Amino acid sequence: MSVHINPRGECVSQPVSTDRVVIGVDFGTLSGRALVVRVSDGAELGTASHDYPHAVLDRELPDGTPLAPEWALQVAADYVDVLRVAVPAALAQAGVDPSAVVGIATDFTACTMVPTTADGTPLSELPRLAGEPHAYVKLWRHHAAQGQADRLNELARKRSEVWLARYGGLISSEWEFAKGLQMLEEAPEVYAEMAHFVEAADWIVWQLCGTLTRNACTAGYKGIYQDGTYPSRDFLAELNPAFADFVADKIDRPMARLGDRVGSLTAEAAALTGLPEGIAVATGNVDAHVTAPAARAVEAGQMVAIMGTSTCHVMNGDVLREVPGMCGVVEGGITQGLWGYEAGQSGVGDIFGWYLTHQVPAATREAAAAAGLGVHEYLTELAARQAVGEHGLVALDWHSGNRSVLVDHDLSGVVVGLTLATRPEDVYRALLEATAFGTRAIIEAFDGAGVPVKELVVAGGLLKNALLMQIYADVTNLPLSTIGSTQGPALGSAIHAAVAAGEYPDVHAAAEVMGRLDRGRYVPIPANVLAYDALYDEYRTLHDYFGRGANEVMHRLKARRRQVRAQAPAEVDA
Amino acid sequence: MSVHINPRGECVSQPVSTDRVVIGVDFGTLSGRALVVRVSDGAELGTASHDYPHAVLDRELPDGTPLAPEWALQVAADYVDVLRVAVPAALAQAGVDPSAVVGIATDFTACTMVPTTADGTPLSELPRLAGEPHAYVKLWRHHAAQGQADRLNELARKRSEVWLARYGGLISSEWEFAKGLQMLEEAPEVYAEMAHFVEAADWIVWQLCGTLTRNACTAGYKGIYQDGTYPSRDFLAELNPAFADFVADKIDRPMARLGDRVGSLTAEAAALTGLPEGIAVATGNVDAHVTAPAARAVEAGQMVAIMGTSTCHVMNGDVLREVPGMCGVVEGGITQGLWGYEAGQSGVGDIFGWYLTHQVPAATREAAAAAGLGVHEYLTELAARQAVGEHGLVALDWHSGNRSVLVDHDLSGVVVGLTLATRPEDVYRALLEATAFGTRAIIEAFDGAGVPVKELVVAGGLLKNALLMQIYADVTNLPLSTIGSTQGPALGSAIHAAVAAGEYPDVHAAAEVMGRLDRGRYVPIPANVLAYDALYDEYRTLHDYFGRGANEVMHRLKARRRQVRAQAPAEVDA
Repeated sequence: MSVHINPRGECVSQPVSTDRVVIGVDFGTLSGRALVVRVSDGAELGTASHDYPHAVLDRELPDGTPLAPEWALQVAADYVDVLRVAVPAALAQAGVDPSAVVGIATDFTACTMVPTTADGTPLSELPRLAGEPHAYVKLWRHHAAQGQADRLNELARKRSEVWLARYGGLISSEWEFAKGLQMLEEAPEVYAEMAHFVEAADWIVWQLCGTLTRNACTAGYKGIYQDGTYPSRDFLAELNPAFADFVADKIDRPMARLGDRVGSLTAEAAALTGLPEGIAVATGNVDAHVTAPAARAVEAGQMVAIMGTSTCHVMNGDVLREVPGMCGVVEGGITQGLWGYEAGQSGVGDIFGWYLTHQVPAATREAAAAAGLGVHEYLTELAARQAVGEHGLVALDWHSGNRSVLVDHDLSGVVVGLTLATRPEDVYRALLEATAFGTRAIIEAFDGAGVPVKELVVAGGLLKNALLMQIYADVTNLPLSTIGSTQGPALGSAIHAAVAAGEYPDVHAAAEVMGRLDRGRYVPIPANVLAYDALYDEYRTLHDYFGRGANEVMHRLKARRRQVRAQAPAEVDA
Repeated sequence: MSVHINPRGECVSQPVSTDRVVIGVDFGTLSGRALVVRVSDGAELGTASHDYPHAVLDRELPDGTPLAPEWALQVAADYVDVLRVAVPAALAQAGVDPSAVVGIATDFTACTMVPTTADGTPLSELPRLAGEPHAYVKLWRHHAAQGQADRLNELARKRSEVWLARYGGLISSEWEFAKGLQMLEEAPEVYAEMAHFVEAADWIVWQLCGTLTRNACTAGYKGIYQDGTYPSRDFLAELNPAFADFVADKIDRPMARLGDRVGSLTAEAAALTGLPEGIAVATGNVDAHVTAPAARAVEAGQMVAIMGTSTCHVMNGDVLREVPGMCGVVEGGITQGLWGYEAGQSGVGDIFGWYLTHQVPAATREAAAAAGLGVHEYLTELAARQAVGEHGLVALDWHSGNRSVLVDHDLSGVVVGLTLATRPEDVYRALLEATAFGTRAIIEAFDGAGVPVKELVVAGGLLKNALLMQIYADVTNLPLSTIGSTQGPALGSAIHAAVAAGEYPDVHAAAEVMGRLDRGRYVPIPANVLAYDALYDEYRTLHDYFGRGANEVMHRLKARRRQVRAQAPAEVDA
């Protein structure tokens, strides 16, 4: 007998199962999580997570070498630890015999880049490079390559590179070309030593099956791989002559489609994980994108919003269009055979969290405690009693800048309408609404570009806030569905494992059976839709005023702030 | 022997003095304060205050009759209580024999209106009217006559009444014409019964000397008395035929100049106060305006900002000009012989207070307590460590609307530049700065209209915040002086009492000797002036965008809020 968690989230005892299962492993920013899923119905049988021993290196290397601001590194061996610890633990929790496992698939943060030797050894594991920052994994949120990204964008605009529009007009400093160029220019000897510059999503698959491939998702969204080609040698040479062969030398490896079997579990990986040698290993994938099939949302027009500290929007479309401000569009980037679109809001849950920490008074905390509620829950309960517009506020949700649709990280947050009668729950609700307006602006960009959004599907931690969900339904005037699993990415990976193992003909078919969706969970309330139409007009007017050049005050304020902070404290008020 | 407070604020013992003294009595919103001042040098010898027993009636009358929102009434007998209690107490504290008192003067909130019978009895003291709201004193912040004020302004604009520009284009609902018209229209029988509609500033003088006069200050600033005349009978008739004789019947009484002796203390008032019968009683005055001589700031171009929950700006000018958005300009309205200008910011200290109560987290309060500081002081200390622009914010100080220069109470507050790195002290400082920018906008309006501001003199509770004062000096690029007394209005009244008693030839001469000014206490810091010039440009751009019609979002948000609140709670989110 064993204990497992059934699809309704209940703990039940059952005899050890011999049903075929797959394993999905989700590699996040601070930990990895393995999930054991039954092939026949998607039941989540067991799960275990493992924290990365080194977490994020953003102050110093393990040997004490200090890091500059904006750096964020990781240690690749920590990922292997997840395979070694969490996979067997999840199987044990599921009460499943390893022999029942027919496939494994993984998803990862992106763009997270591992520099390796020819055999895949991370450069940081070479003792002579242990004190060299550029030898470590550059985590997605490593932001120290902004200078390189700026030059890359400028040159791409100057040369009218056709691929630029596929990324909403901006290549991020988080992506591999900026990170690679930074490495070349700051540590040319490490760059020269590097045989491969590999997405962690592909590196982990390489560890599992011994084959280095590039998954279509990160190659497209982060690697500027479009229409079968990367940025040209000519372009790269103009950026930096020594960078001309970056593609051929460092990153151009065999492409693999999502859901494909890229290899079989090696003997070493079998020994590491306790899984049977030779089972299917699927193409690598990205945490956000892999969530779409987990939510049975892979049809054209089903926009999946993965809502957490920030929001990532992924959606399939059956046509290629240039959507202003999108993060990227990639053929087969979400599922094979469709155009996968990605957009994003840089701040969502972390704006609510910031507000809670820095702008909510003691009286509210005390009232929440007296009511036996968390502060988020208490503020939400107060805010839910209000009618639309009752607080008299409208806010811009740009506390972390704006990714889609303005692609401007130097924008900032605004609250308009404050009075002496404004209470904490008023601003809180205005911030919830502002993020919903931000999502509507993205949806309108897609609709306007000819890639219509028909349904909003929410995954991620914020879906538990019913008021927030109703606001999103009302603001977007779309039926809002929610994923039926708290393990979206790992479940999505498991679905890909099942397809790679040949259990289903494709990801669509597997998602239909194994995905979990609470369809139409929130329905727009007509009176609220009408009221929000008017408030959204206000948002949109302020959005364009502050975000499209009518008043560059936000850029000037940030520039002044940077300038002041860079100076000695001599000019502080007397 | 007795204890008194010398001009430097020290407590010293001395023999009972026989120096001539005067009494100033300041009638505030919740209490009245008497101050005993030596004629020869302005030394403040003793003070005592008395709370109004009925405070403000804004929910119900003493008999339980409920009041509508926006109402604010008082009981006139409470003012008499101040004379009876605080005056003898102040004398006792001063150790001064009553026979040494040569004069008394008073200042009051305005426009605060007392409806009386022919002999000055407040109508509310007639037993049959004790349950009638309109029989009570209408306090300055009684806001229930907005409908009447709106009609009055509309008609004045339509008829191009010349006096309208003397009030920045707007007659306030707080003033006597709106309050009188409300009374006529809502309680015509009480209106008919009323023999006089008297400013409390004049009513209290009437109680002291038995003579009903109108002081030049309230007649001008609140009574629309300009160039020797009130609004015409024709105008009033068009407003409401029954209102045609309002001026002649209810308010037009003999005018008295500031500093004049309007009469002598009656036997009854002498018995009430313990003061000698027959001493000089000065013309009534207003708390803000009377502060100018207390701060020795009665020359043209010395702008006195009385900074508390809101700020009132008063300044003499030697020419008559129409300053956009001023509250009023009155010949002899501050001191005889000059044009007295008034402007105002509707929210200053109460914005900081609102922020403290509703937007400052527990952690900040705890840190303040640990540092042994109040929260205002702690936030100020953190904010003072910042260089100009370091917080990256700019705010609009319109949480209570904007009086000068936009004259629009439906504007609201804004904060631009919020990021996840924004801390409570950042917003706090931005709010301090926003009120300084608001003062600069007023100064620029005066300068632009040909009434130049040469010096900023601060009185009121906020002058104790040194950071705030330095910010005001830096933002306005003016030398900033502070009043040297914590009893500005009462000291100002005492100065008027000395003039009325013939101790000085005029208020200027008395102020020179008896006023208290810390001249040039704060000097602009050139680097900060430069930095604030740039930030003020940002403020000004947002000020004009939100305040001058480019984006009417604030009006729409407030209208929506009112509409929603007026509806049943049926439309609240499900």
